[in-house]
Amino acid sequence: MTSFNPVQVIIDKRDGKAVDASTLRSLIDSYTAGHLPDYQMSAFLMAAFLRGLDDDESWALTEAMLESGETVDLSSVEGIKVDKHSTGGVGDKISIALAPVVAACGVPVPMISGRGLAHSGGTLDKLESIPGFRTNLSLDEFRSQVARIGVSIIGQTDEIAPADRKLYALRDVTGTVEYAPFITASIMSKKLAGGTDSLVLDVKCGRGAFMQERAGAEELAHRIVDVAARFGKPTVAILTRMDAPLGRAVGNWPEVREAVRCLKGDNIPDVTDLTLKLAGEMLVLGGVVKTPEEGESKAAESIRSGLAFQKLADLVLAQGGDPWALDVERPHHVTEIEVRYLDGPTGYVKAIDARDVGNLAVDLGAGRRSMGERVDPAAGIVFYKRVGDEIRPGDLLATISTNRPERAAEFERCLRSAVSVGEEPVAGAELFMGRYSG
Amino acid sequence: MTSFNPVQVIIDKRDGKAVDASTLRSLIDSYTAGHLPDYQMSAFLMAAFLRGLDDDESWALTEAMLESGETVDLSSVEGIKVDKHSTGGVGDKISIALAPVVAACGVPVPMISGRGLAHSGGTLDKLESIPGFRTNLSLDEFRSQVARIGVSIIGQTDEIAPADRKLYALRDVTGTVEYAPFITASIMSKKLAGGTDSLVLDVKCGRGAFMQERAGAEELAHRIVDVAARFGKPTVAILTRMDAPLGRAVGNWPEVREAVRCLKGDNIPDVTDLTLKLAGEMLVLGGVVKTPEEGESKAAESIRSGLAFQKLADLVLAQGGDPWALDVERPHHVTEIEVRYLDGPTGYVKAIDARDVGNLAVDLGAGRRSMGERVDPAAGIVFYKRVGDEIRPGDLLATISTNRPERAAEFERCLRSAVSVGEEPVAGAELFMGRYSG
Repeated sequence: MTSFNPVQVIIDKRDGKAVDASTLRSLIDSYTAGHLPDYQMSAFLMAAFLRGLDDDESWALTEAMLESGETVDLSSVEGIKVDKHSTGGVGDKISIALAPVVAACGVPVPMISGRGLAHSGGTLDKLESIPGFRTNLSLDEFRSQVARIGVSIIGQTDEIAPADRKLYALRDVTGTVEYAPFITASIMSKKLAGGTDSLVLDVKCGRGAFMQERAGAEELAHRIVDVAARFGKPTVAILTRMDAPLGRAVGNWPEVREAVRCLKGDNIPDVTDLTLKLAGEMLVLGGVVKTPEEGESKAAESIRSGLAFQKLADLVLAQGGDPWALDVERPHHVTEIEVRYLDGPTGYVKAIDARDVGNLAVDLGAGRRSMGERVDPAAGIVFYKRVGDEIRPGDLLATISTNRPERAAEFERCLRSAVSVGEEPVAGAELFMGRYSG
Repeated sequence: MTSFNPVQVIIDKRDGKAVDASTLRSLIDSYTAGHLPDYQMSAFLMAAFLRGLDDDESWALTEAMLESGETVDLSSVEGIKVDKHSTGGVGDKISIALAPVVAACGVPVPMISGRGLAHSGGTLDKLESIPGFRTNLSLDEFRSQVARIGVSIIGQTDEIAPADRKLYALRDVTGTVEYAPFITASIMSKKLAGGTDSLVLDVKCGRGAFMQERAGAEELAHRIVDVAARFGKPTVAILTRMDAPLGRAVGNWPEVREAVRCLKGDNIPDVTDLTLKLAGEMLVLGGVVKTPEEGESKAAESIRSGLAFQKLADLVLAQGGDPWALDVERPHHVTEIEVRYLDGPTGYVKAIDARDVGNLAVDLGAGRRSMGERVDPAAGIVFYKRVGDEIRPGDLLATISTNRPERAAEFERCLRSAVSVGEEPVAGAELFMGRYSG
C-alpha cells in the first residue's frame, strides 16, 4: 500500500477532484483494518455523495471492497453460474421461486442474499421462516452445494467483503445510503465474491423501493451494468415497478408460501410473471437458451414438470430445512385479523402503498427496527384485493397475521390507510419499466 | 431539548434544507455531551460545508457553541470591553503590542487567544516564551485581572465553549476547516464567552493566511460582523494582506522581542502601522475617542509616553512572568545561522513566501507538527531584508535561530527558496485591503 494522507483525500473529494484507484484502495483497506476512523470515512462518504464518483471511481471502489475479503472459486462447477439481485421491495419473494427454477433448467445459481432493511423484506429472513433452514453456511459448504445440486442461497459471511459490512453500517447512520455508486459497490462486491459469472438485476422503482424516482433507478442500473462489464461479468438489469406490494403476500412465511404456490403452478399475479421474466434472462446468460423468450418457456416448463418445486425441496433439505413444512399453510401460532372494506363507495382499488405496507409488516413483527432484532416468521399480510380490482363494502381486503394482537386496531387502521379506492375503473400499472445490458 | 433524529438532520442538510436553531442546538448539545458520535458530526459538517449554512444557521451554530460552556461576566468592570482577533498568519505578534496599548488608553481588553496552528503562530505560544508567563488562568483570575489592570490574555479554558474544542479537533482531521460559518462560530463562541462587549477582527488574506483568496476573506469578515451584530456586539473587521511575514521576526521569543521594540517606540514596518490601526478602531468601539484617526493618535501617544510598555510589563507580572526578561535579546541557548544573499543578481526583493516561512519556523521548532507537542521558544527567523528592499550579493538576508543545528543546510535552503529577487524595483504591497462594520 502506498502511503496516503486521508485528510488530503477527503479534501480532494470535497473539492470535486477524482480520487485514483490506488488511493481509494488505501482508504478502504485502512478502514477495513480499523486504522482509518469512522469519522474520516463518513466525511469522505458525504463528500463523495455530494461531489460525485465517476465511473472509474465507482469501479475502483467496488474492486477495493470486493478484494477486502475472499472470493469463492466456482471454476470447478460446470456451467456458467448466474446470480440474481433485487434492490429491495415489499413482497419481493422472487428469489425463492427463481433460484430453483433456473437451477432446474441446468444453470447453477450461487446466490448471496440479504436481510430485511427498513420497510423492505430480505430473502434470508424469509428462508429462515422454514423450520431448520440455515443461511449461514461456510463458503466451503456453499461451493460444494452449488456443485452438488446447482443452487445455494446464503448470507454475507465474515470472509465476504468485510469492507462492505462496515461501510454499510456506517452509511446507514450518516445519511449516505441512497447513492448509486455506493449501492453498486455494496451489491457488486458481495455478488462477485460469491463466484458468479454473470448477474441479473431487478432494479425496483417506486413508493416501496429505495429509488423512488425513475432517474435514480436508471442511474443505478447503468452503474451496475457498467461496473459488472469491467469485471467481465455480463449483467442484465430489469427495471420493475414497486409502488404496490409484489403479489398478495407480505411477511416471511406468507411470502415463502406464495413462492411455493408459484412453483406448484398457481399463476400468482406479478410473481409468476416476474419469476419467468428474470429466469428467461438468466437462462440466456447461463448459455442454455438463445433468447429470453425461449428461456421463459423453458422456465415455465420446469414449473409444469414439477422439477422446479423439487429443486426448492432439494435446496431446503441441503440447507437443513424441513421440505415437508413447505406444504403447511400457517405453521406458527399466530393471531389472524380479517380486514374488510367497510366505509367507502363501491369502486376500484386505485393504489396500495408499498412503503406503508412494508412499515406495517415491520410493526407486525416481520422486520426489524434495529440491527440484530429477531423477526417473527409468521407475521405478515395477505391481500385479497389488488390494484385494479373491483371492491364493494363488506369485501375482505386482507388478513393480518401477528403475535401482537393487542395492537390490532392500530394495525387495521394502518392497513386501511395504505389502500385507496376510487369510483372509476383503473388499469393495473405495467410491472416492467425497462431493460439495460452492457 | 426536543427529541431529534440526527440521521434525518444530516439528510436534510445533505439535501440542502435549512436546519432550525433548536435542531442545531440539539445537535451541538448532544455532541458535546458525548451522545452524538464523531462519525455523525463529521458527516453533518461535510454536508454543511458543501451545501452551505445561511446567516440564521451560522448565528444559531455560534450561539449553541457559545452556550455549551460558561460566559465570563465582566459587567462589574467599568468601561466598554473590547477584544481583538486575528484569523492567523506568519509573524503576527500584533496582540502582544496591541492589548497593552489599548488598555493603556483606558479601554479594558479581555483577550481569549489561541495557539499556533499549521504554519501560523499563536499568541499563547509567544507569551509563554516569556519566562514564567501563565496563559492558563482560571476565569476568576482572568476577570479580576481585567478589573485590576485592564488587560488579560488567556487561552480557552475547559469551561469556555467545550463544543468548539471538540468540533475544532474533528474539523482538523475531516477536511472541514476552511468554511466561513464554521470559522465564525469557532472564533465568536470563544470571544463572546470571554465577556467582551465588542470586537476588532484582523482578517488575514494571502499566501500565509488560511483564506488565501480575497473572496473567502471577505465572506468571513461579513459573516463575523453579521453574527456579532445579532449578539449585540459591535464589531469591525479589517482585511489585511498576509503574503509575506508581518514585520521582521517569526518565532515565539523573536516575535515577543519585536512587539517589545514596537512598544518602546521603534517604528517596525507594518507591525507599528497595524498595531495603531487596530488600536484606533478598538478605542472608538471602547468609547474613548470619536474616530479611528483620533484613536490612532491616542495609541501612538501611549507608546511615546511609555504607558503602553508599562502596561505590558504589568500584564507579564500579573500573569507570573518576568518583566525584566522583556529587555533580553536572546535569553535561550540557541544556534544562530546567518543566511546571506549569494548567487543572484543585484536587485530587489520581490516576495517572501509567508507560508514557506511559517512551515520553516515549525521545522525549526517554533511550531507543532501534532497536537500537544512542545514548542521551542527560541527558534525562529529574523529578516534583514523585506519585500521592496534593494539587495546585493553578500547582503545578510536573515538569521535563523534553532536548536536543531544538524539540519542547518536544509533550513538555509528552505529560507532561500522562500525569497524571490528580481532586477526591477518593486513597491511593497499595501497592507490594508478593506474595512467592514455592521
